[in-house]
Amino acid sequence: MSPTNHQVRLGARPSGLPVQSDWSFTEESVPTPSAGELAVEIEYISVDPAMRGWMNAGASYIDAVEIGDVMRAGAVGRVSASENPDFAVGDHVYGAFGVQEHALSDGQGLVKVDPGLAPLPTYLGALGMPGLTAYFGLLDVGKLAEGDTVVVSGAAGAVGSVAGQIAKIKGARVVGIAGGAEKCRWIVEELGFDVAIDYKGEDVRRALREHAPEGVDVYFDNVGGEILDAVLTRLARGARIVICGAVSQYNATGPVSGPSNYLALLVYRASMIGMVVFDYAARFGEATGALAGWLGEGRLISREHIVEGGVSAFPDALLKLFSGDNTGKLVLSLGVE
Amino acid sequence: MSPTNHQVRLGARPSGLPVQSDWSFTEESVPTPSAGELAVEIEYISVDPAMRGWMNAGASYIDAVEIGDVMRAGAVGRVSASENPDFAVGDHVYGAFGVQEHALSDGQGLVKVDPGLAPLPTYLGALGMPGLTAYFGLLDVGKLAEGDTVVVSGAAGAVGSVAGQIAKIKGARVVGIAGGAEKCRWIVEELGFDVAIDYKGEDVRRALREHAPEGVDVYFDNVGGEILDAVLTRLARGARIVICGAVSQYNATGPVSGPSNYLALLVYRASMIGMVVFDYAARFGEATGALAGWLGEGRLISREHIVEGGVSAFPDALLKLFSGDNTGKLVLSLGVE
Repeated sequence: MSPTNHQVRLGARPSGLPVQSDWSFTEESVPTPSAGELAVEIEYISVDPAMRGWMNAGASYIDAVEIGDVMRAGAVGRVSASENPDFAVGDHVYGAFGVQEHALSDGQGLVKVDPGLAPLPTYLGALGMPGLTAYFGLLDVGKLAEGDTVVVSGAAGAVGSVAGQIAKIKGARVVGIAGGAEKCRWIVEELGFDVAIDYKGEDVRRALREHAPEGVDVYFDNVGGEILDAVLTRLARGARIVICGAVSQYNATGPVSGPSNYLALLVYRASMIGMVVFDYAARFGEATGALAGWLGEGRLISREHIVEGGVSAFPDALLKLFSGDNTGKLVLSLGVE
Repeated sequence: MSPTNHQVRLGARPSGLPVQSDWSFTEESVPTPSAGELAVEIEYISVDPAMRGWMNAGASYIDAVEIGDVMRAGAVGRVSASENPDFAVGDHVYGAFGVQEHALSDGQGLVKVDPGLAPLPTYLGALGMPGLTAYFGLLDVGKLAEGDTVVVSGAAGAVGSVAGQIAKIKGARVVGIAGGAEKCRWIVEELGFDVAIDYKGEDVRRALREHAPEGVDVYFDNVGGEILDAVLTRLARGARIVICGAVSQYNATGPVSGPSNYLALLVYRASMIGMVVFDYAARFGEATGALAGWLGEGRLISREHIVEGGVSAFPDALLKLFSGDNTGKLVLSLGVE
């Protein structure tokens, strides 16, 4: 165990894409738990598009990260010391441990995970917040029904890749929108999507006309912007648009580009519904059980895109999300044996 | 009865606000019903913001009016001749009779109205499509609950003025947004709204902060544009935004201005839902009964803004909706005794 805890803190609020000087890199001693606390040696850190929003001033669905704070991040690691009777040294846990090597916790909000059941990074992907977001977004918010035509954007990303697979499991026809031929190949050939649309190489509106001729019943939106506007032109009557994120807009320095075609909601009697996965916390067990079952049966594939290099590699890793470099769940490995 | 039927037809598709040359004015003989038909002498014609959308090419929630067609319009009139056993000469009826003095009908879709129960123009307002739109939009789509804070835009218009009053009847706190001091006075002092915001004279966002400190539970949107964006910043958790119309955008010559703040849907777990009143046709009886009851009890006030001048005054009357000249339901009178 390193005697030093390396940390990444928010140094300044970014304008547009975060740059290196928006971060500060600090070192502290590895913390020692007091009564009721435990210490965690972090092994894998989740890198998420939503992080960009947390870096802005002002409360959103969650408080902003303050300047000087360790950057907020979900992570998995191993309990290295414990004065909390609920956790033993050697337990593996998920929690909001931040972008650092070691974290102290009072145990609240921590979830024990079993590395024998699935590799640890999967608890940041299909068995973590992305999987839960896909599950509740599609089934509860999107009210997916068998036979629906579902469109998923960011379809090769952490949430989108799981959402599309759940839609297939539930008997929908699934069209994924992703950037680049390789991602498109992956979601069709390996994940089983019915069709992929490469937004970097195709006219999305025309492709939707071809691949969703009866209209889109559920649109699971991770990207916003022009793709949201394109899907709005192809809705089926009574369509549900699940607003899960808008990665195309998170680094906008001017106003966010709102959907010009929103009056399609009226034309198609459709709804656009915002969701935050934390609202479903009471039902995480149900969802995790279903997701783990599908993983075990081989019906759901979890792919993590692992970046090596420890916490100092975090700033560059985050940028991969906005350039679309990742396929599957982006995870930073801290290289712990 | 005039021996001639004067008509207003769509002459050209407008770009932006309709101009006089977008219309053509024709004369025909008054039609004579064949077997199964009836002829109606039209007395009042409904003038609606939605008409602007019907003038554009391409099907929306309803077919476009074709060039050369009599302009589509709801209207009320008196049966002047009948070869249809369901209608007698002297009956008063509502139907999609168009902007003309006389119409022929096979009786389908016609609704008999009783001028003894309410003045005929009221059947184009609180007892007509605007009242029905307000009723179903607020109660079914918006799922209004007692104690909710409701914001209505276009609050002095045909739909908004009824929506706000229904919200009061149902025990909500109601904030109306309208243009100008006189409209604001009217909706508060005469219609009983709790507060009015004059968007021409006030900062809407700041006024909402003051008048909806706990956030907006239901937003009944008739206008779109900047006001929609302002309300999106003040939502309560789980808010419902009813998209009824977007009068600020109907004459846009470029792309419609989409709501930049739509990601507030995610922050507030809110939904934005489009509606078209025709979907509720099977329940029009229920709603009309409720509306007529409230009118009879004096709890609901219907105001019609009557423009004289016959069908040739229609083009100018329509423009009043976009300059905000009307208070209450805009109706064109054909001056029939």
